[in-house]
Amino acid sequence: MTVSGPLTAERVFESGARLAAESAKLAGLGWMRGTSGNLSEVVCRDPLRLAVTASGLDKGELSASDVAVVGPAGEAAHVRGVAPLTPSAEAGLHARVADLTGAGAVVHVHALNAVIAGDRWPKGVRLRDVEMLKGIGRLAHDDEVVIPVIRNSQDMADLGDRLEAAHDPRTPAVIVASHGLYAWGADLVRARHVTECVEWLLAYALAVG
Amino acid sequence: MTVSGPLTAERVFESGARLAAESAKLAGLGWMRGTSGNLSEVVCRDPLRLAVTASGLDKGELSASDVAVVGPAGEAAHVRGVAPLTPSAEAGLHARVADLTGAGAVVHVHALNAVIAGDRWPKGVRLRDVEMLKGIGRLAHDDEVVIPVIRNSQDMADLGDRLEAAHDPRTPAVIVASHGLYAWGADLVRARHVTECVEWLLAYALAVG
Amino acid sequence: MTVSGPLTAERVFESGARLAAESAKLAGLGWMRGTSGNLSEVVCRDPLRLAVTASGLDKGELSASDVAVVGPAGEAAHVRGVAPLTPSAEAGLHARVADLTGAGAVVHVHALNAVIAGDRWPKGVRLRDVEMLKGIGRLAHDDEVVIPVIRNSQDMADLGDRLEAAHDPRTPAVIVASHGLYAWGADLVRARHVTECVEWLLAYALAVG
Amino acid sequence: MTVSGPLTAERVFESGARLAAESAKLAGLGWMRGTSGNLSEVVCRDPLRLAVTASGLDKGELSASDVAVVGPAGEAAHVRGVAPLTPSAEAGLHARVADLTGAGAVVHVHALNAVIAGDRWPKGVRLRDVEMLKGIGRLAHDDEVVIPVIRNSQDMADLGDRLEAAHDPRTPAVIVASHGLYAWGADLVRARHVTECVEWLLAYALAVG
Repeated sequence: MTVSGPLTAERVFESGARLAAESAKLAGLGWMRGTSGNLSEVVCRDPLRLAVTASGLDKGELSASDVAVVGPAGEAAHVRGVAPLTPSAEAGLHARVADLTGAGAVVHVHALNAVIAGDRWPKGVRLRDVEMLKGIGRLAHDDEVVIPVIRNSQDMADLGDRLEAAHDPRTPAVIVASHGLYAWGADLVRARHVTECVEWLLAYALAVG
Repeated sequence: MTVSGPLTAERVFESGARLAAESAKLAGLGWMRGTSGNLSEVVCRDPLRLAVTASGLDKGELSASDVAVVGPAGEAAHVRGVAPLTPSAEAGLHARVADLTGAGAVVHVHALNAVIAGDRWPKGVRLRDVEMLKGIGRLAHDDEVVIPVIRNSQDMADLGDRLEAAHDPRTPAVIVASHGLYAWGADLVRARHVTECVEWLLAYALAVG
Repeated sequence: MTVSGPLTAERVFESGARLAAESAKLAGLGWMRGTSGNLSEVVCRDPLRLAVTASGLDKGELSASDVAVVGPAGEAAHVRGVAPLTPSAEAGLHARVADLTGAGAVVHVHALNAVIAGDRWPKGVRLRDVEMLKGIGRLAHDDEVVIPVIRNSQDMADLGDRLEAAHDPRTPAVIVASHGLYAWGADLVRARHVTECVEWLLAYALAVG
Repeated sequence: MTVSGPLTAERVFESGARLAAESAKLAGLGWMRGTSGNLSEVVCRDPLRLAVTASGLDKGELSASDVAVVGPAGEAAHVRGVAPLTPSAEAGLHARVADLTGAGAVVHVHALNAVIAGDRWPKGVRLRDVEMLKGIGRLAHDDEVVIPVIRNSQDMADLGDRLEAAHDPRTPAVIVASHGLYAWGADLVRARHVTECVEWLLAYALAVG
């Protein structure tokens, strides 16, 4: 994936195709009910531009053109040849995560276990000594991991501040209480894999905790 | 979707194709076991006519012609070129919902979590401060939502009266205790999305409640 | 489906195709792990002959020729043009059910909820006032239904005697404790629908019981 | 499957195709989240050589060439015409299992129920008098079965020693605590079937235990 050079419609739609493919997999796991959740990919670093799944659509049935381009605050960014679809309101948080962490892709899903875990452990979900932690870049032994939990808000700047304050650079995921999960990675496939591993870890924590 | 002009067989079968497609998705989620559940779409407003999935068929394997047309009381309505299949007995309740709420489509599923929630909270399921409430048209914060629960009956007029008495115009869903869930929306896709979001909310309520 | 006239290989393989199709659906629900479970269809009434899924195969991947023909005691019955595959050891119980109840098809699955329910209620699972009971031919109101539970055995004659003693002609299903579920119907699709509805009812009973 | 004669690239890729097919089925069951888990098949007995799924890939989307060849200690083994992909670090344990048990194929998955059961019963999971035990080669009655549980380690030699010390030749599976499940069989399909049956048995034990 190229993130430098001119941002063309072709590159945006290539990104849209990847967003649609990964989105369909996550929707198939039941984590994007209704039209909930959204995925993004950084398509330009300077200035920061993300391709984000368009708002209000069924995340299991997106096509390559169901994509919007946003800038650092989640505002729509014009790209010649790309129809200006409405980005998700949460696009601003995606951009914030990409800026803060250097991630190349961000996944946001309404995974039920994330919301239940956020309710049970509002100060963060502690995990330790589980092999699956390697799937999110941590160690399987003697590594105290906390998945941060932040309070929900409809103001993406507030939510971004909370995420920035709570986030641990070693842990590529944050739970938004009463809402869902954000997870990220170097690219979209990696971000989906992190999402899958975090959800497994939360299911495990809920079962044994 | 056109709901005025002459009600032709072509329009009924177009509706049948949409009913089959959405029905297959809901069946795939496990909410239409056996031949349970039914979906409908308003195909004419004046007089009120609904296309409803035909009775006794596997809801995961419908085709466009597995459709019946009914009037306001769920009675079969003749359309030239449409074979008179038996509508579901529950078609009368679909029509009542469409008339009462102005919805363009109604979904009825035997989602297990709806029946369990109806058992646990026979006076209605209270929900508040959850992001997923936006998926059913309510607010994520400071909005007290109650999914009504009504007693079951085999008499669709009784059931309709109970639904009318219990229903909140702001909340597009009602649980029928010991039975299942009714949900609705402007069109079939929206009604399916509402169904998915309500089921998620009920699963959440059962897990944390 | 014809059950009179000469029993030809063609009719056996037509039955095999139906067995494979329904088996794949039940396997997809997770009720036929490993090579567990088996399905059968009556292909001749006099003398009694059943087409049964062949033993030791993956029930999600059968083809039309993965079928054996058995007589009243589950013994292999020769049909010209049909290779003598090993029938499941449980074929004798299928034949007994078909003889006892007049069912045209029998499904046996290792559904986890059936085994858990058999453990919890070894004298039978009581159900009453649930709409889904209509899916197994009973009433939604004021109808006391008991899904019988019988002790497991490796002797199909013993198991058949227990099933005959416990079974209620109005209820097309029996749980074999520590083992799984038998369900039946007029044809294979109906037998699968009954299986789905019984499993839903058992999941419900376990959740609210 | 041939395990003697010259080990050609063709045989390795045939094995890779089988590994990809079975891996996709297990991933579809949710037991290989992220890039977790790995499958192997013995492709030569003397010297011992296993074809193993390559590391770091999505186990639901492997192709026939996503395969590595390893020797008895999990070290990469050169085969002309096969690109030297990185085998999973756990390949050494696969080889140890194949050597110890004579199995022709080994499956390792991160099935949640295995990890939960390992937490609940760190000295082994006792099972008895369940029909599904026949699916792992044991008896349905009067046969005391223990699925061993061993402590996790990142050192495959240590893990292999623990597995060798704990393993019961009659039971083709071992739980690695805080990690996942190893299961094996004469070939890959059998190893997958054993995996499915063990997971069912663990789900059952957790539900009734």
